[in-house]
Amino acid sequence: MKNSNIVQYMRQAFNLAKKGINKTGLNPLVGALIVKNGKIIGEGFHNKFGGDHAEIVAIKDAEKKKYNVKGSLLFVTLEPCCHENKKTPPCTDKIINKGFRKVYFGSYDPNPLVNKRGIEKLKKHGIKVEMVNLKNSLTEINKGFETVIQHKRPRITLKICSSLDGKIFSRIKTSRDVGDEKQQLDANNLRKLHDAILIGINTLREDNPLLTFRGKGSKDFIQPRPIILDSHLRSPIDSNIFKIGNKPIIFTENIKSSIKEKKLKKIGAEIILLNSITPKKIINHLYKLKLQRILIEGGGKVFSSFIEQNLWDEIIFYYVKTIYGKESISMTDYLDKVVDISSQYKSEVKKIGNSFRVKITK
Amino acid sequence: MKNSNIVQYMRQAFNLAKKGINKTGLNPLVGALIVKNGKIIGEGFHNKFGGDHAEIVAIKDAEKKKYNVKGSLLFVTLEPCCHENKKTPPCTDKIINKGFRKVYFGSYDPNPLVNKRGIEKLKKHGIKVEMVNLKNSLTEINKGFETVIQHKRPRITLKICSSLDGKIFSRIKTSRDVGDEKQQLDANNLRKLHDAILIGINTLREDNPLLTFRGKGSKDFIQPRPIILDSHLRSPIDSNIFKIGNKPIIFTENIKSSIKEKKLKKIGAEIILLNSITPKKIINHLYKLKLQRILIEGGGKVFSSFIEQNLWDEIIFYYVKTIYGKESISMTDYLDKVVDISSQYKSEVKKIGNSFRVKITK
Repeated sequence: MKNSNIVQYMRQAFNLAKKGINKTGLNPLVGALIVKNGKIIGEGFHNKFGGDHAEIVAIKDAEKKKYNVKGSLLFVTLEPCCHENKKTPPCTDKIINKGFRKVYFGSYDPNPLVNKRGIEKLKKHGIKVEMVNLKNSLTEINKGFETVIQHKRPRITLKICSSLDGKIFSRIKTSRDVGDEKQQLDANNLRKLHDAILIGINTLREDNPLLTFRGKGSKDFIQPRPIILDSHLRSPIDSNIFKIGNKPIIFTENIKSSIKEKKLKKIGAEIILLNSITPKKIINHLYKLKLQRILIEGGGKVFSSFIEQNLWDEIIFYYVKTIYGKESISMTDYLDKVVDISSQYKSEVKKIGNSFRVKITK
Repeated sequence: MKNSNIVQYMRQAFNLAKKGINKTGLNPLVGALIVKNGKIIGEGFHNKFGGDHAEIVAIKDAEKKKYNVKGSLLFVTLEPCCHENKKTPPCTDKIINKGFRKVYFGSYDPNPLVNKRGIEKLKKHGIKVEMVNLKNSLTEINKGFETVIQHKRPRITLKICSSLDGKIFSRIKTSRDVGDEKQQLDANNLRKLHDAILIGINTLREDNPLLTFRGKGSKDFIQPRPIILDSHLRSPIDSNIFKIGNKPIIFTENIKSSIKEKKLKKIGAEIILLNSITPKKIINHLYKLKLQRILIEGGGKVFSSFIEQNLWDEIIFYYVKTIYGKESISMTDYLDKVVDISSQYKSEVKKIGNSFRVKITK
């Protein structure tokens, strides 16, 4: 098969994988494609935590359409699993039994129970294997799962948008939308790959955001869950986040009024009482809720608390071409210490519309 | 002649022009090269405010070496002048009289007394002309002269180095050298194209900088003049800037002690008394002193005052990969208003070592 075709099929498999965003819980996003005689005969993606793996979905899809998968090619974004004692049987066995000719895979499974063993097993049974490394944004989809495997917690992205002098709010010029359309589109696109968007109560009350992804492909998209840090349960009942129907999570320290609590629950909120709201406790809870990727959108207090705890995997700074001066609030007005960022971390800078985006990845 | 040769000769002419840095006062930097039968027979650059233009220096150089310039090619970085009533006669006349065959030039003269007329005059006298647009950093050398012509003041570059949250000094971590070697080299290179480096008295007292260019080519380089804003004449006599011998300029509002004044003058300082030190008054004075390009290196108070007055042509921000938090001083702790930066201005962002450089040019 031509290299360009291989890449094209793998891209399609990754695009299938993306359909599982916000559906797989702590499981990886995986897409699979079965090709026989130059024709796609089956497609699948991992669709539900504990549900069929993408390979199995694709096989079932092909067989439902009366195709025999024997001798065909399998394109799968992640190394097929080979471990027992879990919700579903090993995919490698199925691939072997069905008599696939070759397996193209996008990356090794970071899970140490699988890592490279799935591929070894296929090879041992005479199935050809080949890694197809796309090196583009599509492969980003596995990042959340990697963090889950490595750190036993969701992946955390911090986003902050400031003036060139690091200010996030001006007491003189109180309009909030400092970025232009391109910057806002870029920032909104971040939400596409996240299960949940976290903000502080002040941001909720002042901006009343929707916290939804609104870009291309948003129509069939399961919106991320809003998370509000609201120690005194001051979330307004008429906030926009309650109008989307995607079960906002409210962390609180204090339920003085059970009437307010009932009201919030009635409109779909999940209320989590902690004795103190700390980044660590929040993240532990979100892990239990099987959320894989959290985007933290501020404000400054929330941003600073996660920086202070060094609890992040990626930070995205947007610097807008304006200077706010001293009559303003800095992104770190709540940060008590100096935090050096290791030179080992990957960093990237790009002009986005009228702004500059700095991305630092651990 | 081959295009690659033309570009090569023009590059050499620009490199000659650069030898005039800090020597030409408010005049442009110009380099010239005479080529005959594929051989360079004369070279010159503008060397002194009011002195021979580069073309004349190159002609004299060729003739001194007994060459006849008739029929040869002239490479000159700036359009030859054609206006009368100035310190030197028009270069166009000389080029015509000497019988040059063709003139390659790097850019039109922004001076409205010349702009395109010099070239027209040559064409009218049967001399071929061709513009060679290098579009690289070498052509930067004309920027100062353009500002002088357009705004009747020196070109002003603001430089500021901060943490990612816009802080320039931490009260917790007091070491100043936040950037790595590459960032510092890049920042130091800025000094190469400036006649003078301006800082506030606090930066002088706290950092005791040399304010010299120390990179490649610094050996034969005339160092920029240090400029200190020192309202109460508190510049320490033993500051490093007095050890270089390049006549530091001290702006002051208050000469209480004539002994201090005498001492400073004795070690080479030029003291300028203003009733109040404002960006506008400073710049007017520096224009009178025939300084063409001023690099303003801070600190925050000086930076803010020039931002506030909108008195700049280029701003260079270096963001170092560290977060200083609240126990620190912001780059704009002295700026009372919001300053939006027009989206019309050119901007560029680049990773420099462990830092990010944002460059905004009006």
